[in-house]
Amino acid sequence: MPTDIRLTRRVQFYETDAAGIVHFSWFFRYMEEAEHALWRAAGLSIHPRGAEIGWPRVATSFEFKRPLRFEDEFEVELQVAEITRRTIRYACRIAQGEETIATGELTIACVRRVPGEPMKSIEIPPEIAARFQAAAGTS
Amino acid sequence: MPTDIRLTRRVQFYETDAAGIVHFSWFFRYMEEAEHALWRAAGLSIHPRGAEIGWPRVATSFEFKRPLRFEDEFEVELQVAEITRRTIRYACRIAQGEETIATGELTIACVRRVPGEPMKSIEIPPEIAARFQAAAGTS
Amino acid sequence: MPTDIRLTRRVQFYETDAAGIVHFSWFFRYMEEAEHALWRAAGLSIHPRGAEIGWPRVATSFEFKRPLRFEDEFEVELQVAEITRRTIRYACRIAQGEETIATGELTIACVRRVPGEPMKSIEIPPEIAARFQAAAGTS
Amino acid sequence: MPTDIRLTRRVQFYETDAAGIVHFSWFFRYMEEAEHALWRAAGLSIHPRGAEIGWPRVATSFEFKRPLRFEDEFEVELQVAEITRRTIRYACRIAQGEETIATGELTIACVRRVPGEPMKSIEIPPEIAARFQAAAGTS
Repeated sequence: MPTDIRLTRRVQFYETDAAGIVHFSWFFRYMEEAEHALWRAAGLSIHPRGAEIGWPRVATSFEFKRPLRFEDEFEVELQVAEITRRTIRYACRIAQGEETIATGELTIACVRRVPGEPMKSIEIPPEIAARFQAAAGTS
Repeated sequence: MPTDIRLTRRVQFYETDAAGIVHFSWFFRYMEEAEHALWRAAGLSIHPRGAEIGWPRVATSFEFKRPLRFEDEFEVELQVAEITRRTIRYACRIAQGEETIATGELTIACVRRVPGEPMKSIEIPPEIAARFQAAAGTS
Repeated sequence: MPTDIRLTRRVQFYETDAAGIVHFSWFFRYMEEAEHALWRAAGLSIHPRGAEIGWPRVATSFEFKRPLRFEDEFEVELQVAEITRRTIRYACRIAQGEETIATGELTIACVRRVPGEPMKSIEIPPEIAARFQAAAGTS
Repeated sequence: MPTDIRLTRRVQFYETDAAGIVHFSWFFRYMEEAEHALWRAAGLSIHPRGAEIGWPRVATSFEFKRPLRFEDEFEVELQVAEITRRTIRYACRIAQGEETIATGELTIACVRRVPGEPMKSIEIPPEIAARFQAAAGTS
């Protein structure tokens, strides 16, 4: 039952912009990379082929303290902050050692996906909820 | 003195993901496209060549209500929500007609960029601040 | 029966990199935007929802003559260069007026997509082939 | 004097598209990741801060044999195929073990970058050329 994960990553050239720093949209992708690594650490894929269950993102945010530049190495720390009946909320920290680069949050919801129909909110299946534990306990 | 802008846009294939919808990181890029269009409408570029002033993003968020899919047409509405001495905050709505797809916010800060030195927060130059007006008045 | 299309486009900030120019991977996306606009001009979508037919890319190339920078306006010209029984080949020119920025090619193949099975090459359905005409005649 | 490099990589969700496979534009980014890792293995950065020398891409291509999907692991193999006085050409293979997924090429040129002026082709500095060796010998 993993509650958090920590990745080490290097800035790729295509992630930078003409201001010479990582474009802010990439931080959301870094956070999602950590999320999917957390699911793999829990023995799951967030998007198994042919699955009827999906996990659309319902809310997300980031605060940026310092920029990252080409070839910088950094860490992505992701923690399950809260699990409710229908949602999971993560807290994320992008850092270089002691120095915080950015902090973010991401909330996802569980839905049933039927081709040709709108996605429909459902409760998180117990066999999935059982694989995670919120840092401060499941609410 | 523009306070807002409205773009019409179509979902490109490379913006979709294996869930068949626009990847959430793209909404931040849509918002930024509108920001830069707003600056052009104000007679400015947010990143003129050789400029010593820059506008790093300090905080941003989105809430997602409904997905967008390949070739969907949608609108990006961006409004200057607040101008302080050192920051600009925008409010954004992604919509298809009456239907809200997502709502977001973006706060940027004014900095001086000197090659080889860290970015340093400065006050927004008056000739730039004069080109924008917050929807609810400049604070 | 359109044989070509011409789009006007502006460089977005997230398309630039730390060298201050558009990252070369974006030229392939510009070319694909024009392809999909060409299909729409032909009354088709290249990826209709639920379709069993798909169009994977089998080969592509670009030669780059000059860089594009943030907020540059440019044109994307795409032409159907050749249609065979199973493939379509496009020729593309990225330009600013008389000046050629880059030239590229893209070859796509028609496949049948059945969930859980490998994609299988098939002949282009006549009702689709009939919507396009190669610039130099269908081979 | 490295002549080649081999990376192991996993498909990220944001690299997939609505066809359920990696979008073809990503293969060029995978190739470039390997290029920059090769330069680091040679003790160099391809884009050191403040450098007057740059390496724009002048030509590139890919042929695609099989698709990659979310969470697939794959290898990126990059080899210096040729070094001329002003250019470096790489050959790339994307693979899953014995199976070739795609093969590509990339040619870059050495230029002098002076702010506000067009990039100007120059000869590759000997101290850089000395760090690489083409697989079939330097031409």
